[in-house]
Amino acid sequence: MRVLGIDPGYALMGWGIVDSEGSRMRLVDYGCVETRKGVPMPDRLRALQLGIRDVVAIYHPDEIAFEELFFAHNVTTALMVGAARGVAIIAAAEHTNRLYEYTPMQIKQAVTGNGKADKKAVQQMVRLLLRLDEIPRPDDAADAVACAITHIQAGAGRENFRMT
Amino acid sequence: MRVLGIDPGYALMGWGIVDSEGSRMRLVDYGCVETRKGVPMPDRLRALQLGIRDVVAIYHPDEIAFEELFFAHNVTTALMVGAARGVAIIAAAEHTNRLYEYTPMQIKQAVTGNGKADKKAVQQMVRLLLRLDEIPRPDDAADAVACAITHIQAGAGRENFRMT
Repeated sequence: MRVLGIDPGYALMGWGIVDSEGSRMRLVDYGCVETRKGVPMPDRLRALQLGIRDVVAIYHPDEIAFEELFFAHNVTTALMVGAARGVAIIAAAEHTNRLYEYTPMQIKQAVTGNGKADKKAVQQMVRLLLRLDEIPRPDDAADAVACAITHIQAGAGRENFRMT
Repeated sequence: MRVLGIDPGYALMGWGIVDSEGSRMRLVDYGCVETRKGVPMPDRLRALQLGIRDVVAIYHPDEIAFEELFFAHNVTTALMVGAARGVAIIAAAEHTNRLYEYTPMQIKQAVTGNGKADKKAVQQMVRLLLRLDEIPRPDDAADAVACAITHIQAGAGRENFRMT
């Protein structure tokens, strides 16, 4: 099974592709879709849509796992990050309806065994689990890879999007 | 010129099509894209995307004006409304790059001459300006029509999306 993990963000949207076969996982590729400050919102959102569409078109993931957002510093930020997330969900939904979502705590728990692990511990476990020489950079890409790992490890306990 | 006004919302997204020729305006059609509570977020966002795509495909607006959001009761709401708005912007951007955005205060000012007018006053002026027998229903559709009127009346002072 091939899983695309996505860490939704407005300036940087992380993504990571992980293949699994039995208990074995392999990192296929990862990266970020980047949008620049000072560009009108429609263009930034369009760039995110096309970026995720490209990733999906190139790697054909079987399932797609999003890191859930439920925190933002303020309402203005939430409106922008929410827009970025909405656009990524739409771009993903054009490819498959096998979409899932995990909270940061679920991701920490799945990757390190500790729901309160810090970012560094999560990244180190990502490196170990995938037998990488280095931690994926930037953080947003590493987070997306961790989200894909979480989905693979969830097995039958995978988390569909909550009803809203 | 044909203008599509959009009042972005998650459960109800209002839209209104207004034609202008010189100082004359005519309401062509209006309505809401509705999404139901209890449906997973990707399906609701997809419904909004397809709904706006349909409106744009049927009416071929020359320009599209959004009511700007900058208020939400809390971050959770902002994330959802932000997603709905992001999806509507993307669906609009597939059709044209002539996208504009007005604050509620700008809309009230343009339609009634008073930036602090209440909802009822705005709706009555929408009815008068477009020579309608009744106020468009629901409120979300009336707000979208008011946004289209604002854009038409803005003329050369039209408001592009803010850089973010």
